[in-house]
Amino acid sequence: MDMMMMNKMMESMPASTMGMDMMSMQACIEACDACAMAATMCADSDMAAGMGRCSSMCMNMADVATTMMRMMLRPMGHDMMSMKAMLEASMAMCQACMDECAMHADMNECCRVCMMACENMKAECMKLMAAMA
Amino acid sequence: MDMMMMNKMMESMPASTMGMDMMSMQACIEACDACAMAATMCADSDMAAGMGRCSSMCMNMADVATTMMRMMLRPMGHDMMSMKAMLEASMAMCQACMDECAMHADMNECCRVCMMACENMKAECMKLMAAMA
Amino acid sequence: MDMMMMNKMMESMPASTMGMDMMSMQACIEACDACAMAATMCADSDMAAGMGRCSSMCMNMADVATTMMRMMLRPMGHDMMSMKAMLEASMAMCQACMDECAMHADMNECCRVCMMACENMKAECMKLMAAMA
Amino acid sequence: MDMMMMNKMMESMPASTMGMDMMSMQACIEACDACAMAATMCADSDMAAGMGRCSSMCMNMADVATTMMRMMLRPMGHDMMSMKAMLEASMAMCQACMDECAMHADMNECCRVCMMACENMKAECMKLMAAMA
Repeated sequence: MDMMMMNKMMESMPASTMGMDMMSMQACIEACDACAMAATMCADSDMAAGMGRCSSMCMNMADVATTMMRMMLRPMGHDMMSMKAMLEASMAMCQACMDECAMHADMNECCRVCMMACENMKAECMKLMAAMA
Repeated sequence: MDMMMMNKMMESMPASTMGMDMMSMQACIEACDACAMAATMCADSDMAAGMGRCSSMCMNMADVATTMMRMMLRPMGHDMMSMKAMLEASMAMCQACMDECAMHADMNECCRVCMMACENMKAECMKLMAAMA
Repeated sequence: MDMMMMNKMMESMPASTMGMDMMSMQACIEACDACAMAATMCADSDMAAGMGRCSSMCMNMADVATTMMRMMLRPMGHDMMSMKAMLEASMAMCQACMDECAMHADMNECCRVCMMACENMKAECMKLMAAMA
Repeated sequence: MDMMMMNKMMESMPASTMGMDMMSMQACIEACDACAMAATMCADSDMAAGMGRCSSMCMNMADVATTMMRMMLRPMGHDMMSMKAMLEASMAMCQACMDECAMHADMNECCRVCMMACENMKAECMKLMAAMA
């Protein structure tokens, strides 16, 4: 299934009671998806001595990103208060994971890519938060 | 595996950099676990006409509760800022799901139990938040 | 929410098209839940040198156990073929994770408890499989 | 993060003890990812009367696809037996969800796209299984 088909599916989803259609969340959905994948790989690759904290934070990042993405993909249940609070939690988790990965980005390609994926997800969550205000 | 064994495992986990041992999170961990199970069942049972919003919110609740629980079970990655933000998101999600389930609690036993599980999880998240301050 | 309330909720769930009520799955549901928690903790604790494979397998175990548990908690979607295949996948994952954890059970309390949780989940999946035949 | 960056990350992951590099799993990883997203949306849109079974199966499909994807993204834990069993479970779940969605594909765009995403994921799982034999 290519991105064109996914876009078509998103267009067919109803606007939520928050008054937002899913297309306006598309960039944030894709950023969460990419971050969930990058963090899952990074958690697995962080197995050298002293990388335990990075691995654990990446496991958290992957779960938070997957949950945030799923919430956006379910317009029937959209609710302004819980969506905003989950966007805040996502941004805090992105910042923490990004800071940790930044410390190992020189040595570990996975940490470098995961750091960028966190940074991008955080930026997209901020944009969506601004659009919801 | 009974609860005594689980407690023994939690006792063996190291205190996190937040300075909290896992035993102090035990009630919140169990409340998240129960809420994740109740919300998964409730989402599945909400299939009568007009229950779509309840089902969708319960799917979100189940994912948020599972993510919150897993973050507590990973002491290596504990981080004050992201933990607090995720506790806030959990409380907001509990409130939204509880409010929705309350509207159907008279007709649907699953909604009634899910409502109570959300209420309990919210209360335990608040207690943990207070203990972290 | 205590176990009595959870049991009451399970009793209120409809029998699935597979002709099984949820109470007959209760022991397996609880075994998956315990295994998902134990494996999440074990993955986090496996941060010493040489424990990367154990940690990675425990992450897989936690995701498989959570998915298996959720499938049982959704009677509307019960389907004999997919349920049996997922029980097989669960038993294979339990065996692999149990074998890996057994190698470190002497040194690491988390591995010892996770190994037992995998063993118990595998046994309960086998019992349920037999009951479904 | 675009696909080029994700590819670069996958290339940097070590070959697993199964003797397969992650690039050989890339098509299957992407098919699982797309299926998880499509099934999450489809479960949310299936709220009309009589669509409860479709919604429930799609929730199962989303969890199975996410778990299968994560297992591929963790090369440290790759294990031939559990990977093959999880591929079998994925194919069975794809078939069941595809069959259910096919019944509503004329009326519901989400069911039509989800059906195609399941079909594609099943095909990619079969190809990977063949490559592993």
